[in-house]
Amino acid sequence: MHTLWDERFALRTDKIGSSAIRELLKLTSLPDVISFAGGLPAPEVFPIEKFKEASDVVLTEMGESALQYGTTEGYQPLREMIARNASKYGVQISADNVLITSGSQQALDLLGRIFINRGDRVLVESPTYLGAIQAWNAYGVKYVTIPFDEDGMRTDLLESRLRTGLKFIYVLPNFQNPTGSTLSRERRKQLVEISDNYGVPIVEDDPYGQLRYEGEHLPPVVCLDDEMRAKEVPVYSGNVIYTSTFSKILAPGLRLAWVVAPSEVILKLVQAKQGCDLHTSTFTQYLAYEVANSPWMKSHIHLIRKTYSERRDVMIQSLREYMPEGVRWTEPKGGLFLWLTLPESMNSNDLFKPAVEAKVAFVPGGPFHPLGGGENTMRLNFSNSKPELIREGIKRLAKVIKDNM
Amino acid sequence: MHTLWDERFALRTDKIGSSAIRELLKLTSLPDVISFAGGLPAPEVFPIEKFKEASDVVLTEMGESALQYGTTEGYQPLREMIARNASKYGVQISADNVLITSGSQQALDLLGRIFINRGDRVLVESPTYLGAIQAWNAYGVKYVTIPFDEDGMRTDLLESRLRTGLKFIYVLPNFQNPTGSTLSRERRKQLVEISDNYGVPIVEDDPYGQLRYEGEHLPPVVCLDDEMRAKEVPVYSGNVIYTSTFSKILAPGLRLAWVVAPSEVILKLVQAKQGCDLHTSTFTQYLAYEVANSPWMKSHIHLIRKTYSERRDVMIQSLREYMPEGVRWTEPKGGLFLWLTLPESMNSNDLFKPAVEAKVAFVPGGPFHPLGGGENTMRLNFSNSKPELIREGIKRLAKVIKDNM
Repeated sequence: MHTLWDERFALRTDKIGSSAIRELLKLTSLPDVISFAGGLPAPEVFPIEKFKEASDVVLTEMGESALQYGTTEGYQPLREMIARNASKYGVQISADNVLITSGSQQALDLLGRIFINRGDRVLVESPTYLGAIQAWNAYGVKYVTIPFDEDGMRTDLLESRLRTGLKFIYVLPNFQNPTGSTLSRERRKQLVEISDNYGVPIVEDDPYGQLRYEGEHLPPVVCLDDEMRAKEVPVYSGNVIYTSTFSKILAPGLRLAWVVAPSEVILKLVQAKQGCDLHTSTFTQYLAYEVANSPWMKSHIHLIRKTYSERRDVMIQSLREYMPEGVRWTEPKGGLFLWLTLPESMNSNDLFKPAVEAKVAFVPGGPFHPLGGGENTMRLNFSNSKPELIREGIKRLAKVIKDNM
Repeated sequence: MHTLWDERFALRTDKIGSSAIRELLKLTSLPDVISFAGGLPAPEVFPIEKFKEASDVVLTEMGESALQYGTTEGYQPLREMIARNASKYGVQISADNVLITSGSQQALDLLGRIFINRGDRVLVESPTYLGAIQAWNAYGVKYVTIPFDEDGMRTDLLESRLRTGLKFIYVLPNFQNPTGSTLSRERRKQLVEISDNYGVPIVEDDPYGQLRYEGEHLPPVVCLDDEMRAKEVPVYSGNVIYTSTFSKILAPGLRLAWVVAPSEVILKLVQAKQGCDLHTSTFTQYLAYEVANSPWMKSHIHLIRKTYSERRDVMIQSLREYMPEGVRWTEPKGGLFLWLTLPESMNSNDLFKPAVEAKVAFVPGGPFHPLGGGENTMRLNFSNSKPELIREGIKRLAKVIKDNM
């Protein structure tokens, strides 16, 4: 039906079409479909009882402030807790370096809003996180891509990219979404040093850093950057903006994430956030603080690691058992996803429909490549399905692949 | 301290400086200051016990879905409840016409994002709501203003403005923030008819519609627009986008509001929101539904009306008692604010510091005027202070005004 609004959409809306993936995801919620398509945590590990206790404490003891307007920067005790935890991981920051956001997606959007002029170039891994592509497309970004291998971003190719002039580098160092790859310690150092030499700063997106199932914890890029600088005060003033989230360690329904940045960047982010949503829910921030600021949190993260590493193992075991010759996959040391590569001649888009008919779903890999390519790849999520369903789902998927080879 | 980020801020950040008001508000939270400056609901009327019960029900019965990712459109039962309520008020809509947003501020930001190209002209009342100015400045809007009087926007001046070419008209018809004025029934009709004639659509912002303390309820502009159209299906397809919020009738800390619009506009808003924050907190949406979808809600709104109308009466009574000759104010029939006008020669900015020293705070009226003016005005909030403090605060403010006359 025609309304006066029809012809009035802004030019930028051409760039912010619905993610093809989210449309696909709707199909995957059909009954009986075993879905490896989403990026959902396992609801079985949501600490529901802890949230009940926390709701009761927050509403009984602090109800009036927990339900009132709050500051744009975020709930001060939560910011301080994040600063304390970051300091434990090796980067000295204060609450002034922390902004609470309405999920990581908002962190990405606000970074686009304060940094990206139309036509600005941003370096991303290819493939990279879809949410970042969607957020920054709205600001007219141009992507420059860098390939990855099992050790993450190919830092040996970095200098050729940096010479082309970039606003910033976007990196997901741990168990990258979508590939599951982790940037090696050596490459992290190279990344920090080369980007500093060329004067190009880094956005480090780390939603899964605490979800490592094997091997040694690697220092975040922001820590390596901080180590290069001599400072007297525990305030971060380096070249890296770091973002992480409570979605994977508590619950995504809270929509709570955070940004760590030099304080002048935090100030700009706060100004931008005021115009976007004033502030993030006070109530969910109080809840998250109540639940996360407890020694219990350590055991909870152990439970998540145990649950997901078992699921990852089952998926990899099933892939080995059922997949035909010519199909390869990553074996991530953490996170929620692995990445499957079909023979060059195949296109995962063509498999989507037969797969859903066979009651199994995945995400085709193409859209994760901002400059195209990757049609023979797909992302598989192992966190959201129970082990017995993972086995059955991989069996179904292998059959679909074989039938279409 | 210099970082690589310093010189990299996008051009648009020049436009999104921190609201002067929010900086002022920080001063007003000093101890012993009686603040009429904020726009805060009274925490005494937050239904804390209801939220406790609702948290318990939601987490016990629906914990896994309430803490999981949700759809960008919003929690379906909540959207349906809003559609049912709207239908009671006279506009026939379905859930497809409703988007849940992270507060009204996000609704304004998303509308700017999908409609405003740099240089587009938007008609606003002068003075108008600061949050809208802040949201749309980021998109490079140009404002065209229209004066108001005690019956709201001067619709007799509308045609001269519409001939200049406008993207849309922004109106706050009920107990406008900042003036407290209400658009009369006659002018609502004129607004709808004239804007339809000229082909310019309307954004209706109605946070306080249910907070009327006297007089007859007036139909929202969206209803009058809907009445003009003959339709067979209960789907809204008119020229008005309507937005309202749970902040004033439940609690602002939830950050929950909604937009009612033709479905093609909702679709674009959803696409934009995906990139901004993926979706609004599932948990707070479940809570709001649980609390608001109850006959109890009616009595709760009565309680809020009773509380705020008493405070409004005390403020008006105190103004009459203490204010010197030459000071005028509006006497709103609802909402949270009234508007005070000093003699032409005075500047309310100059009074801010002496007022805070005298332990009373207000918001200077200048920033509410997007094209300047209004230096002799101020906004006073009556919802957040208890009656005895309102009386004392107005007494202090009157003395400051007298001393500076």
